[in-house]
Amino acid sequence: MLRSTNDGERYELTSPTAMPKAGGFLWNQKMMIQITCRGYAIAQFMQPEPAKYTHAPNLEAKTFMQPEQNYYAHHPGRFVYIKDEETNELFSAPYEPVRAAVDTFVFSVGKSDISWTVEHLGIRVEMTVLLPMQDVAELWTIKVTNISGWSRKISVYPYFPFGYMSWMNQEAEWNEKLGAIIGSSKTPYQKAEDYPKTKHLKDKTYFLCETKPISWEARQKTFEGEGGIHAPSAIQSHQLSNSDARYETPTAVVQYRLELGADEEREYRFMLGPALDEAEVGLMRSKYLSKEGFSLASQNYARYIEEGSGCLQIETPDKDLDNFVNNWLARQVYYHGDVNRLTTDPQTRNYLQDNMGMSFIKPNVARNAILLAISQQEATGSMPDGILLVEGAELKYINQVPHTDHCVWLPVILEIYLAETGDYALLDEKVRTKNGDDYTVFERFSRAMDWLLSTSARDHRGLSYIAQGDWCDPMNMVGPRGIGVSGWLTVATGYALKLWATVCEQHGKSDIAARYREGAKEVNEAANKHFWDGDWFARGITDDNVTFGIKEDKEGRIWLNPQAWSILGGAASPEQIAKILPAVDEQLSTPYGVVMFAPPYSGIREDVGRVTQKYPGQGENGSVYNHAGAFYVWGLYTIGEKDRAYKTLRQMIPGPSEKDYLQRGQLPIYIPNYYRGGWHTYPRTAGRSSQLFNTGTVSWVYRAFVEGLCGLRGDPEGLDVSPQLPSDWDEIKVKRLFRGATFDVDIKRADVNGVKVVLDGKELETPKITGIKAGTVYKVSVSVPQS
Amino acid sequence: MLRSTNDGERYELTSPTAMPKAGGFLWNQKMMIQITCRGYAIAQFMQPEPAKYTHAPNLEAKTFMQPEQNYYAHHPGRFVYIKDEETNELFSAPYEPVRAAVDTFVFSVGKSDISWTVEHLGIRVEMTVLLPMQDVAELWTIKVTNISGWSRKISVYPYFPFGYMSWMNQEAEWNEKLGAIIGSSKTPYQKAEDYPKTKHLKDKTYFLCETKPISWEARQKTFEGEGGIHAPSAIQSHQLSNSDARYETPTAVVQYRLELGADEEREYRFMLGPALDEAEVGLMRSKYLSKEGFSLASQNYARYIEEGSGCLQIETPDKDLDNFVNNWLARQVYYHGDVNRLTTDPQTRNYLQDNMGMSFIKPNVARNAILLAISQQEATGSMPDGILLVEGAELKYINQVPHTDHCVWLPVILEIYLAETGDYALLDEKVRTKNGDDYTVFERFSRAMDWLLSTSARDHRGLSYIAQGDWCDPMNMVGPRGIGVSGWLTVATGYALKLWATVCEQHGKSDIAARYREGAKEVNEAANKHFWDGDWFARGITDDNVTFGIKEDKEGRIWLNPQAWSILGGAASPEQIAKILPAVDEQLSTPYGVVMFAPPYSGIREDVGRVTQKYPGQGENGSVYNHAGAFYVWGLYTIGEKDRAYKTLRQMIPGPSEKDYLQRGQLPIYIPNYYRGGWHTYPRTAGRSSQLFNTGTVSWVYRAFVEGLCGLRGDPEGLDVSPQLPSDWDEIKVKRLFRGATFDVDIKRADVNGVKVVLDGKELETPKITGIKAGTVYKVSVSVPQS
Repeated sequence: MLRSTNDGERYELTSPTAMPKAGGFLWNQKMMIQITCRGYAIAQFMQPEPAKYTHAPNLEAKTFMQPEQNYYAHHPGRFVYIKDEETNELFSAPYEPVRAAVDTFVFSVGKSDISWTVEHLGIRVEMTVLLPMQDVAELWTIKVTNISGWSRKISVYPYFPFGYMSWMNQEAEWNEKLGAIIGSSKTPYQKAEDYPKTKHLKDKTYFLCETKPISWEARQKTFEGEGGIHAPSAIQSHQLSNSDARYETPTAVVQYRLELGADEEREYRFMLGPALDEAEVGLMRSKYLSKEGFSLASQNYARYIEEGSGCLQIETPDKDLDNFVNNWLARQVYYHGDVNRLTTDPQTRNYLQDNMGMSFIKPNVARNAILLAISQQEATGSMPDGILLVEGAELKYINQVPHTDHCVWLPVILEIYLAETGDYALLDEKVRTKNGDDYTVFERFSRAMDWLLSTSARDHRGLSYIAQGDWCDPMNMVGPRGIGVSGWLTVATGYALKLWATVCEQHGKSDIAARYREGAKEVNEAANKHFWDGDWFARGITDDNVTFGIKEDKEGRIWLNPQAWSILGGAASPEQIAKILPAVDEQLSTPYGVVMFAPPYSGIREDVGRVTQKYPGQGENGSVYNHAGAFYVWGLYTIGEKDRAYKTLRQMIPGPSEKDYLQRGQLPIYIPNYYRGGWHTYPRTAGRSSQLFNTGTVSWVYRAFVEGLCGLRGDPEGLDVSPQLPSDWDEIKVKRLFRGATFDVDIKRADVNGVKVVLDGKELETPKITGIKAGTVYKVSVSVPQS
Repeated sequence: MLRSTNDGERYELTSPTAMPKAGGFLWNQKMMIQITCRGYAIAQFMQPEPAKYTHAPNLEAKTFMQPEQNYYAHHPGRFVYIKDEETNELFSAPYEPVRAAVDTFVFSVGKSDISWTVEHLGIRVEMTVLLPMQDVAELWTIKVTNISGWSRKISVYPYFPFGYMSWMNQEAEWNEKLGAIIGSSKTPYQKAEDYPKTKHLKDKTYFLCETKPISWEARQKTFEGEGGIHAPSAIQSHQLSNSDARYETPTAVVQYRLELGADEEREYRFMLGPALDEAEVGLMRSKYLSKEGFSLASQNYARYIEEGSGCLQIETPDKDLDNFVNNWLARQVYYHGDVNRLTTDPQTRNYLQDNMGMSFIKPNVARNAILLAISQQEATGSMPDGILLVEGAELKYINQVPHTDHCVWLPVILEIYLAETGDYALLDEKVRTKNGDDYTVFERFSRAMDWLLSTSARDHRGLSYIAQGDWCDPMNMVGPRGIGVSGWLTVATGYALKLWATVCEQHGKSDIAARYREGAKEVNEAANKHFWDGDWFARGITDDNVTFGIKEDKEGRIWLNPQAWSILGGAASPEQIAKILPAVDEQLSTPYGVVMFAPPYSGIREDVGRVTQKYPGQGENGSVYNHAGAFYVWGLYTIGEKDRAYKTLRQMIPGPSEKDYLQRGQLPIYIPNYYRGGWHTYPRTAGRSSQLFNTGTVSWVYRAFVEGLCGLRGDPEGLDVSPQLPSDWDEIKVKRLFRGATFDVDIKRADVNGVKVVLDGKELETPKITGIKAGTVYKVSVSVPQS
């Protein structure tokens, strides 16, 4: 059913029915496409706001990406119908819309292409989609082979429906000159002042055909007729009717009729994408639409993906894990850092964490992101809710809701960036904001920390206000009146101050460091005084002075984040940690990971917020919210809890058992933002993937592998070595790229007391490699104590 | 294919394929349902903003009602599957989703119910839907009869999909106690301050079953399985799987398995609707869900519809016209006046015109509407863009775009209200606005007219500013800078002033009347000076001083509205009218009515506005926009152009020829807001109905029949009689209700010079009936000159 090839560089599904939502995703610098094994697709591109070129058949709400995307018969997709001209039998590849029980089905997801092989009625159909590196276009190859052993007459109908483009205008027709079906529309607007923004939008969708078809259809209704999408009337005829669409739902279907001798094959190339005008369609055609054009685009794209392959290759006793880490994890981190989730106003916390991961892949991108973010710092020292990436962008959706945690993320990303690069010079760069103030990065970070300590951010008890949200968006009723405080944010403030104090010291500012260490201490004491509940830290105190996330609560009794961050920030003493960990094990762990809190809310709790109204176990209501799990993992590594850490980490990755990934319903090519929780109350749905691959999780998971499990972490002088293998592993091999050098590391258990490092045959006094020269390949043997 | 019964009180379609979008609509005081012959449905209710209880399977944009609604396999609908348990054959009623070629199909639309009869596989299925008068609920009866002549085993599966209810929460399950599948959801919100508005929304959808089914399905995915919606997997099994939905698309399907002897029948009753909680579902069940409950609701509803049957019954040589006017036209007028298009902030012009029609049906409703509208008059005398109908309502969508015409509509509605009622006492009522000012209706109307004449509304030439729109919404770029002026609005201002001057005179204020007569004269002179283009009036002058709607224009050369209103308001002299009428005939008339302007814009014209971007011939871009046609018709009647008037009027009504209503694709039960134009360039789509029955058209059309064609128009003293029969009619009979009296009028051609009226056997000196006594039935014989 699921198999991997090339050591996990591709995943293949051999049935379209068991995991119907399983799919792959490709992106380039301007677009993203998520496509399921059955042929349904979601594609978005930036102009500069996210836009679509294939649409639902009705007017779709413009909103953020929804979890657990719903597919239905007329959902946008990429399909090809095959008709046997002699028997009139019909099937479609990949699977939808006909849903024939085909003889062979292979859905194959690689890092830079997605393809299918489908065999039925003695015909093999191979479909492949590639993206170019920068242009917004899908490059499709459809190959048809006669495997029946005798001559055949068939018709081939690629079907790429455009959907409901716009209520202001939508039409489509075959353009003979360009060899394309071109759909035209006009993005709607209501107010005259909004019109100019719509003028330069790519309101056309094209379906380019390298080979001229014998007939075509641009009107969805006529194509389907009374047969319906599973057996279109137009396909029952000898030829399509060459119908245009005039304010009717547009589509793109073309017909090729061919005779194939035994084993004969025919290959077709197509392109699908948006365009401003016909000239652009023509340009795209001449740039790509040929065997050579596709081949060149494919090579360029593979090279582009290769650039994001990260700094870590591992060889462990867990081959499925190796596959995931070596082939897929860095790719997902790269996706986030490269395209910023296809938004023009990423939430500040997302933007910083996505670039935190980028420190391991393209540190210079992370550097620029720090500079851009801090250049939008407010005069008070606080950070805005979102970072504007392009001229004219606006804060939208959740970014209009006041959150209080954004400053916390500055030292968190900085720690990793500095560890990876040693680039302390960044701190002395001057950054000017729109307000005209002009401070160094160092000064700006200090101002952000001062803000966190100020009375704007903390109450008289020293607890951090939550306003309408901290990291957890839906807790929007804890503190809307400006009184309620966050247990998590308080201990996270302690963590941020601690991190910043360390950077101050490393940058030779011990006096300043002392100030922030003192601040951290104060914050942690306040947290202990008001949030410690005997066995764990509470989640917060509402506007009405109700402490929640405590033993007395029937729902939302214990939250993961305050525990993870009290460990990270030092609020939790070793004695407290010894109480916290079993409490988490007992109340939050599930076979599919650690839930964000438990028990889930079953109904509304109006002093907490809308989290209570989500489906229990879904989204932010007591699900396995991997982002929170990843914080916890990192916390566990910082205290040497290597087995708990590895177990939690491993649960985030779908598989390896078939039962496991079937339950999650996702290929092991990314970590989704959540798996459903509620596994006591709703075992049927527990573990199910959200299918959303946008998540701050992956930066932390990548870090956990690099700096935690492999223990290869940078510091100002060089590379610190302190691996934390799970107890039942005896050896791993690691290739680590670091500051331009390559480290081939062999880590083994041995009878040693502490970590012993042998560098190019010479044992080091302390487990730290210094004096690193870029371009060098180092051989490193590491001995770690028996577990 | 199409037939009518009971003299046109029902329309019946006998095929689901020729006019797939043809449907009927029912409404009550809180909801509306539009349902097609094939079973697709759109239902909305007010709480207080419009909401849905069955949804698209994906997230639908919240927007105004779209024209030419698009249906697709998973569109919300009301269906029943029938399976032969012995052969496993399947079909569905009404038609979707199986689309079997059934033996008999009758879709039957009445004034207070909609029903189907479908026969296939020896089984007859009869489905009927009713609404209660005030509650939001659909009352469904499904009757199954064995017409095969022998015993049968079948299963019956009503299928009422709920769709994608919400991304915050959606679930559904069978509720044993209530005997219902109940879907639960939570209306999403993002900002804490928006939460309270969502708290009392009816976020549940119920499907109540009077008879307990043997199995059920609440999860769409499980119901369909791999079979798809046209052949659901769950129906291929012996029983449904009783699956709940937990953050999965909910649905409602139940199964009844039965054995029917020859000619045996079984009747089931169901209810579909929204509810706040289970208690409300229980209440709805006990109130309605029985044979008696349905029967009572049906009687009450029929009585309610009867109350809106209007003031006119006609008997003419055109039977199809009689059907339409006697059974359907008043119903559509009543719908508008009764529920205000299911909005909480109707556009001021719509609200006033909808109530203009209500003057003929429930004059007291019109009276209250005038008072409510004028109570929202601004301190300047101008009127707001929309009238707020409930506490907490806000101006939305188009009402946020500044329009300049609202004051014009005040005297327009008042003229009709006063003609119908003689209620001049209204003028002396005091009305207080939010500003605290306190004027009589008379004073407020004068202030509105003063505003129209002021420099806020007119430029130095005396031409009326257009801002971002006048009546024609999409002309939003003519005057956004506050310079551009409207040809239509200028002549419409002349009309408004003339009407108001007349009311002033009737109310004994000749001095004030003189002022407005003078104003009208001035306005009309300005219009003639700047807009008369030799053969017709121009449409406007842009911010950049470009006059448009003139001979030199290749597109948008001649617009209907400036012509119609220059006739009404007196700007056009008889000599000018003699030029205008042939120009309209030649350039604007089509077999499906008179287009709003011609030729349609083929591309953008940035100094005019977005009308240019709509599909040529569709919506507001050169379509047969019936509202404009209706103005023109009234203009024609005011100058005695009875044949042109009747021709245009008749073209608005779908039918009578089969070819005609097939092209329009609509039953003759309402006038849509537009038919597509562009019949020279796009003959395939010309005439196609928008399927939108919300339109200001109908008040004017009703008036045209009452006051124009029948010529039975009120004035301060009584009923003026001046019929305008089309030339080829010799006689009509009319029943006219007026000020509480009934007039049985027989109108015949005779050798007379002017109109002669014989009242109860006595010839009147002038054709006017005075001294009318409520409760009396008058016999009136009218002779009109030979044509």
